[in-house]
Amino acid sequence: MVYRIEKDTMGPVEVPADKLWGAQTQRSRDNFKIGAAGSMPLEIVYGFAYLKKAAAYTNSELGVLAEEKRDLIAQVCDEILAGKHDDQFPLVIWQTGSGTQSNMNVNEVIANRAHQIAGKTIGEGEKTIQPNDDVNKSQSSNDTFPTGMHIACYKKIVENTIPGVEQLRNTLHAKAVAFKDIVKIGRTHLMDATPLTIGQEFSGYVSQLDHGMIALKNTLAHLSELALGGTAVGTGLNTPAGYDVKVAEYIAQFTGLPFITAGNKFEALAAHDALVETHGALKQIAVSLNKIAHDIRMLASGPRSGIGELIIPANEPGSSIMPGKVNPTQAEAITMVCARVMGNDTTVTVGGMQGHFELNVFKPVMAAAVLESAQLIGDSCRSFEENCAAGIEPNHDKIKSLLDNSLMLVTALNTKIGYYKAAEIANKAHEEGSTLKEAALALGYVTSEEFDAWVKPEDMVGHK
Amino acid sequence: MVYRIEKDTMGPVEVPADKLWGAQTQRSRDNFKIGAAGSMPLEIVYGFAYLKKAAAYTNSELGVLAEEKRDLIAQVCDEILAGKHDDQFPLVIWQTGSGTQSNMNVNEVIANRAHQIAGKTIGEGEKTIQPNDDVNKSQSSNDTFPTGMHIACYKKIVENTIPGVEQLRNTLHAKAVAFKDIVKIGRTHLMDATPLTIGQEFSGYVSQLDHGMIALKNTLAHLSELALGGTAVGTGLNTPAGYDVKVAEYIAQFTGLPFITAGNKFEALAAHDALVETHGALKQIAVSLNKIAHDIRMLASGPRSGIGELIIPANEPGSSIMPGKVNPTQAEAITMVCARVMGNDTTVTVGGMQGHFELNVFKPVMAAAVLESAQLIGDSCRSFEENCAAGIEPNHDKIKSLLDNSLMLVTALNTKIGYYKAAEIANKAHEEGSTLKEAALALGYVTSEEFDAWVKPEDMVGHK
Amino acid sequence: MVYRIEKDTMGPVEVPADKLWGAQTQRSRDNFKIGAAGSMPLEIVYGFAYLKKAAAYTNSELGVLAEEKRDLIAQVCDEILAGKHDDQFPLVIWQTGSGTQSNMNVNEVIANRAHQIAGKTIGEGEKTIQPNDDVNKSQSSNDTFPTGMHIACYKKIVENTIPGVEQLRNTLHAKAVAFKDIVKIGRTHLMDATPLTIGQEFSGYVSQLDHGMIALKNTLAHLSELALGGTAVGTGLNTPAGYDVKVAEYIAQFTGLPFITAGNKFEALAAHDALVETHGALKQIAVSLNKIAHDIRMLASGPRSGIGELIIPANEPGSSIMPGKVNPTQAEAITMVCARVMGNDTTVTVGGMQGHFELNVFKPVMAAAVLESAQLIGDSCRSFEENCAAGIEPNHDKIKSLLDNSLMLVTALNTKIGYYKAAEIANKAHEEGSTLKEAALALGYVTSEEFDAWVKPEDMVGHK
Amino acid sequence: MVYRIEKDTMGPVEVPADKLWGAQTQRSRDNFKIGAAGSMPLEIVYGFAYLKKAAAYTNSELGVLAEEKRDLIAQVCDEILAGKHDDQFPLVIWQTGSGTQSNMNVNEVIANRAHQIAGKTIGEGEKTIQPNDDVNKSQSSNDTFPTGMHIACYKKIVENTIPGVEQLRNTLHAKAVAFKDIVKIGRTHLMDATPLTIGQEFSGYVSQLDHGMIALKNTLAHLSELALGGTAVGTGLNTPAGYDVKVAEYIAQFTGLPFITAGNKFEALAAHDALVETHGALKQIAVSLNKIAHDIRMLASGPRSGIGELIIPANEPGSSIMPGKVNPTQAEAITMVCARVMGNDTTVTVGGMQGHFELNVFKPVMAAAVLESAQLIGDSCRSFEENCAAGIEPNHDKIKSLLDNSLMLVTALNTKIGYYKAAEIANKAHEEGSTLKEAALALGYVTSEEFDAWVKPEDMVGHK
Repeated sequence: MVYRIEKDTMGPVEVPADKLWGAQTQRSRDNFKIGAAGSMPLEIVYGFAYLKKAAAYTNSELGVLAEEKRDLIAQVCDEILAGKHDDQFPLVIWQTGSGTQSNMNVNEVIANRAHQIAGKTIGEGEKTIQPNDDVNKSQSSNDTFPTGMHIACYKKIVENTIPGVEQLRNTLHAKAVAFKDIVKIGRTHLMDATPLTIGQEFSGYVSQLDHGMIALKNTLAHLSELALGGTAVGTGLNTPAGYDVKVAEYIAQFTGLPFITAGNKFEALAAHDALVETHGALKQIAVSLNKIAHDIRMLASGPRSGIGELIIPANEPGSSIMPGKVNPTQAEAITMVCARVMGNDTTVTVGGMQGHFELNVFKPVMAAAVLESAQLIGDSCRSFEENCAAGIEPNHDKIKSLLDNSLMLVTALNTKIGYYKAAEIANKAHEEGSTLKEAALALGYVTSEEFDAWVKPEDMVGHK
Repeated sequence: MVYRIEKDTMGPVEVPADKLWGAQTQRSRDNFKIGAAGSMPLEIVYGFAYLKKAAAYTNSELGVLAEEKRDLIAQVCDEILAGKHDDQFPLVIWQTGSGTQSNMNVNEVIANRAHQIAGKTIGEGEKTIQPNDDVNKSQSSNDTFPTGMHIACYKKIVENTIPGVEQLRNTLHAKAVAFKDIVKIGRTHLMDATPLTIGQEFSGYVSQLDHGMIALKNTLAHLSELALGGTAVGTGLNTPAGYDVKVAEYIAQFTGLPFITAGNKFEALAAHDALVETHGALKQIAVSLNKIAHDIRMLASGPRSGIGELIIPANEPGSSIMPGKVNPTQAEAITMVCARVMGNDTTVTVGGMQGHFELNVFKPVMAAAVLESAQLIGDSCRSFEENCAAGIEPNHDKIKSLLDNSLMLVTALNTKIGYYKAAEIANKAHEEGSTLKEAALALGYVTSEEFDAWVKPEDMVGHK
Repeated sequence: MVYRIEKDTMGPVEVPADKLWGAQTQRSRDNFKIGAAGSMPLEIVYGFAYLKKAAAYTNSELGVLAEEKRDLIAQVCDEILAGKHDDQFPLVIWQTGSGTQSNMNVNEVIANRAHQIAGKTIGEGEKTIQPNDDVNKSQSSNDTFPTGMHIACYKKIVENTIPGVEQLRNTLHAKAVAFKDIVKIGRTHLMDATPLTIGQEFSGYVSQLDHGMIALKNTLAHLSELALGGTAVGTGLNTPAGYDVKVAEYIAQFTGLPFITAGNKFEALAAHDALVETHGALKQIAVSLNKIAHDIRMLASGPRSGIGELIIPANEPGSSIMPGKVNPTQAEAITMVCARVMGNDTTVTVGGMQGHFELNVFKPVMAAAVLESAQLIGDSCRSFEENCAAGIEPNHDKIKSLLDNSLMLVTALNTKIGYYKAAEIANKAHEEGSTLKEAALALGYVTSEEFDAWVKPEDMVGHK
Repeated sequence: MVYRIEKDTMGPVEVPADKLWGAQTQRSRDNFKIGAAGSMPLEIVYGFAYLKKAAAYTNSELGVLAEEKRDLIAQVCDEILAGKHDDQFPLVIWQTGSGTQSNMNVNEVIANRAHQIAGKTIGEGEKTIQPNDDVNKSQSSNDTFPTGMHIACYKKIVENTIPGVEQLRNTLHAKAVAFKDIVKIGRTHLMDATPLTIGQEFSGYVSQLDHGMIALKNTLAHLSELALGGTAVGTGLNTPAGYDVKVAEYIAQFTGLPFITAGNKFEALAAHDALVETHGALKQIAVSLNKIAHDIRMLASGPRSGIGELIIPANEPGSSIMPGKVNPTQAEAITMVCARVMGNDTTVTVGGMQGHFELNVFKPVMAAAVLESAQLIGDSCRSFEENCAAGIEPNHDKIKSLLDNSLMLVTALNTKIGYYKAAEIANKAHEEGSTLKEAALALGYVTSEEFDAWVKPEDMVGHK
């Protein structure tokens, strides 16, 4: 491989000649060989691209950066956002906990690429723009990285998570409406209980997801607060007056999202409770999804020795040894995602609790966990919706036979003959394997006409 | 011990003669010898007292319960709420996951106590009111237990958690104001960084707690939704029309809190995402508190070999072997609470994800965890405030000597001579153990006058 | 209330006159009003009683404590272990993280009670023995508390947890043997699969618990290491030579358990990885129990609309509204315990990771979590065994009808006609609702005789 | 793109013509668009390669597979293990929870590649070997996937994790030896305490890692048990007699690791407590590493306003804004890894607890989490060792000045003048800012000669 020499304040470093990054990026590659290369999420790099461009505009507007430099920086940022330099960001999550090296990676790539755009050769002549003094002007890693991660997480949630959850929610709602009159046996403690409709059952799922999305949206206000302008420790040292508010406005403009400057920059650097808060809501949605997906696979279990009230699509052969087997694979994928999200919540908690003094140095791992959860929830909701939920159909025969057979219809008699006599009827039918009506008549507590009039499943599913 | 015989649908049971409970409570005592007796939180019993009274009023108003019965039930509920029967609720958390036995415990105590109030002897004659048919009228364990737990958790949060956090927040804010002009060295990565004031540092803590309380309050809407009226599976079977809305109104009236009937009763029985949501916010506050308390103990570390910028109250001898030792014990207590709360979050998550069909049967463990976290956070914030935060004082001498000595003041030169020359100065001073000024002059990058004019800590703490 | 004055190095404190504790205990009560009083587990107090007695014997043997003082200390320790002073230990978990105040509580109670035994009046005259100089001789809180917690946790595990798990394991094993020839349908992905026997199914549960107990026992070596002899920071300052080994021998003698002195005292004070390790195994057992209990309740679900292959005991009325309902309540109790244990694992992890320098100050919360998990697992296994597992019976009719009906018996044909033709048969039977044999014959892939000879469930359950 | 048609029991599917995979792999790609493509760890694919080859040898030896087929299968497996087909395994973790599709991916690639090796063209003519009937002979996904994951995890732990931890442990041990006589101030509760040597402090870290490796190795026995031979539900249906033992022997031979057939195949499919157990030990090591790394960064904090007792290597510029700043970046990387591992432990727990009946369908997420933790711990230990621990040096001046200044040296006087007088001395010195000796002499409790003789830090660090 061919190398060129790049320098930083510690001296010269060999960098692959065909790469845009500089000395500090290369040092990080050499010093942090932990896990697969390039694990730092690209979304964070893009978040940096937005903020570097915004900083350049703000610096220029406030008179501390020349317009030509602003335009060069902005041009490279646009290239990064267009995906043209994805291979120039080789660093890992497991670097310095402030993400300094990823900030420098972006600074270095922008500076070197700007040098190219200015018609020069990287590594030759004075740099057209300086990574630290120009690209990083009025910034520190300590305020840029949390800004980049807020941008990345906010975007991911509104662009992927919420649309995915909504897609699933809408289909479940459509099913709730479609199945609103199909009366089935209810189950509590996994045991037979009084009846309800499939529509009612599914409406509970919809309500869970609605509450989950409200909870998630409630966290966006905190997440919309940007640290930028705090620089090294939150005081805004080396920023021009008015910088923080204006740079957030530019970021809001460039992203089309309602970002604002953080009300308190000291918190914004030293604590990432905003990520803890947001991930808490993602975890809540995972809790809901686990319940919903597990219910659906249990309701679809069988085909002959399970519950079998629902029919779900058969998307692939289910077994490499059992011919003809069909499995609830989408439910399995999404519940595995839930397990991952619940684990990520622990990661975010453990990282979030360990900020020290003016800086929390668990930024990359926290941001990566939030991004992963946000991605996986959105994706798996979409996959579950398209490949499972949308195709759910009731198995009418099975539903009817289970309902007709149920002993818990006896509950309808409580208000007629009291709980204790009703219990006698149910117990007798259970022990003798008879029908409720047979037991009720044998005990003499009701007449045949009364039984038929009082014990009607379709009248037991709620007030009209 | 003297026993009397109580009966339920399974037959007779011996109950201690001096106790108000009945057959099902006794069965639960016998069948669930797990952990210490009486672990079911009394707050949940009180939640039941509110709801049983509200149900009696609603049933009476809707014509399905006699006024005399209503008044007897209400009278016993008031006695329970006055703490007169605390020893009548001996059950444990580790019972049926629907809390049915605690519901029956309340039903039985109310029925037997009402029998007493009616001038009769427990165990003799027909019960004046029936536990199932009267006290439990229009109810199921499946909707009463989640209602009781929502009442208990909501009350605990608004009466204990939030006031406790606010008390600490207000004192930290007062300290932030009092110390707003005390400039000190900042620390990032635990390493010396540019200066800030103690007031700024503490303002970050205040901002964390403010965000935490917003997050917690955001969860109260979901928690205010009551399952009552859903009965067995959410359909409201065996309730009179209009019951659910009215019974929630009575509960709101009796508790003075804004409870409403749940928009979807199927969710309200089958999922407890509301508890997951609320506990997520409690965990977020724990994350904040861990950071704050740990910072404060590190800042107070020493007295001679630590940082020692803050002085905290000496409340007790710190060591059984080291004479004269003083320790940050309040910080230790509250961070242990944080560890507990983080664990409780896992418990609530694991319980919440495992609802099945029409019922989640992890109700008692989830509710107990939320109550414990809510109690401990409120209590420990109060304890930390009274015994530590309120007495925090700056150690001016230490603060000044550390600040004057710092190499990171060099950052002020970035905008004057550039990042790279500034780095040279800092490195030289570090290697030679000299002052920044000495190194700066030796390198010839600034004059003595310039250095004095540019490197002023008090000018480095933000825009005026 | 009547008070007397007790003193410590910080001055006088009022203590309830009828209590044995002294100044430092009282300060802790006043300074840590967090959660219910007395939450510090008594097991830890008993652990202290063992170690204080052992220290007295060792100190005496090594010539630094008079025999009369030794005997007085030992006598009070024996009283404590006999449960005579349980009400003298009012402190909470949420105190100093070294447990210093509980150490002093024990020191003070022993000193004051010894004064009484010596015929004097507490608070009058010079103390017969001094809490710090005599009872605490050759000790520090920093080595006594971890010693007390190791004693408490080790005892709890061998006396409660393992016997409880074994009791359940043995009953499940007995059931596996009893049901070894009952062939039933298997289920993978919750879907019908090839057959196995109930005995085989239960043997998997037994194997899980066997592995869990091996894992738990593997952790006992680390837990048997005692910190005592490390004193303040691990160096053993102020202990006579040979003290650490001898004091561990006395503890082993008094407890009858194989305790030894820790190989490295610096770890033993500063890190509690032994608790992390032990709790990891408790969590593993919780994972197993959750699977086992959930399987059993699903297999017992119904009675008419579930799987219903197993019949479990009906211990109590299951519903306050649904007459005659029976629920798998023991499974619910134990799975709630599992949720608690999983949460405790997070607590222990979060506490364990935060040791600083020479001391971990999350001792009380870590020890309390381990003790709670160890208690709850043992208790709930016993409860589940006695009230559920011991009474499990197969529902032969249901088992047979589900088995005969299964499509997955087709797998037996793989080795005869290949996977692909077998799949055709299964798919055809599924679509047409026919039997496998009908489909197989219709497709012409086998003769009637071949089918009967090849598709025999009892031949599909393994090599003889 | 050019496609060819592949078929499975559900019909034809278009597959990219240049790929070796077949219909079921393609279906999985289409049905599970969740997260980045190819997230299924390659280590698991390699685990499959070992087991497929072993199965071919066993099948051949037991007379159910022709030798030519065996050799073709083995040849492709060897190619896979040589890394020649890494791009043929595009599936994600978030697929069916049994990993069936990854099993089929391997089966299909082997079958198609064997067809090529046999000189034929994929998609043309009858397959030389069949994916289900030949490659998968005597196997099911249900026993192959857990076998593959055990192989992958076991190898990763012995080849990466343990060597990495050992490398760090050995360097810390070397430092402990090198620094064994450097006396320094101890710290408990973050406060000054009695002295110890750096060697002693580091010996505690070594002991933690030694215990951690013992704990990890204790889990390998369970992990060495292979499910292979259980096939669909654990009964071994469709395997020749003796297959399970022999196939494990071949795997042991091919991998050079002590794999054995699982004692109970029902557990081996239905529960993955072995992964829970192993990950519990990985989490314990993470707990240790977090303590160690955090201690080291605190001890190295400064350079002027922190503790500064240790000097760690400066590997890169620490700040994009603060010139000359050096940060403990390796400590940050490894503590972020710890946060990830702790989260993974929750993931593995949540997955492990949800096995149902004869199969746990959280296999891929559990295996991926174990592999990630095992990789990251090994890598980060190595990185921390090479780039930080190996270069740690004591800062003698700072160590000596902090030690000489300490008030806790007073503890040496306990055995001479008693705890209470010693406390008086310490308190007086603290209040007056004087030295201990000055205070001691002023109080008249010791002579100057006694003080010098008794208070010698180098005599306070343990028995010689």
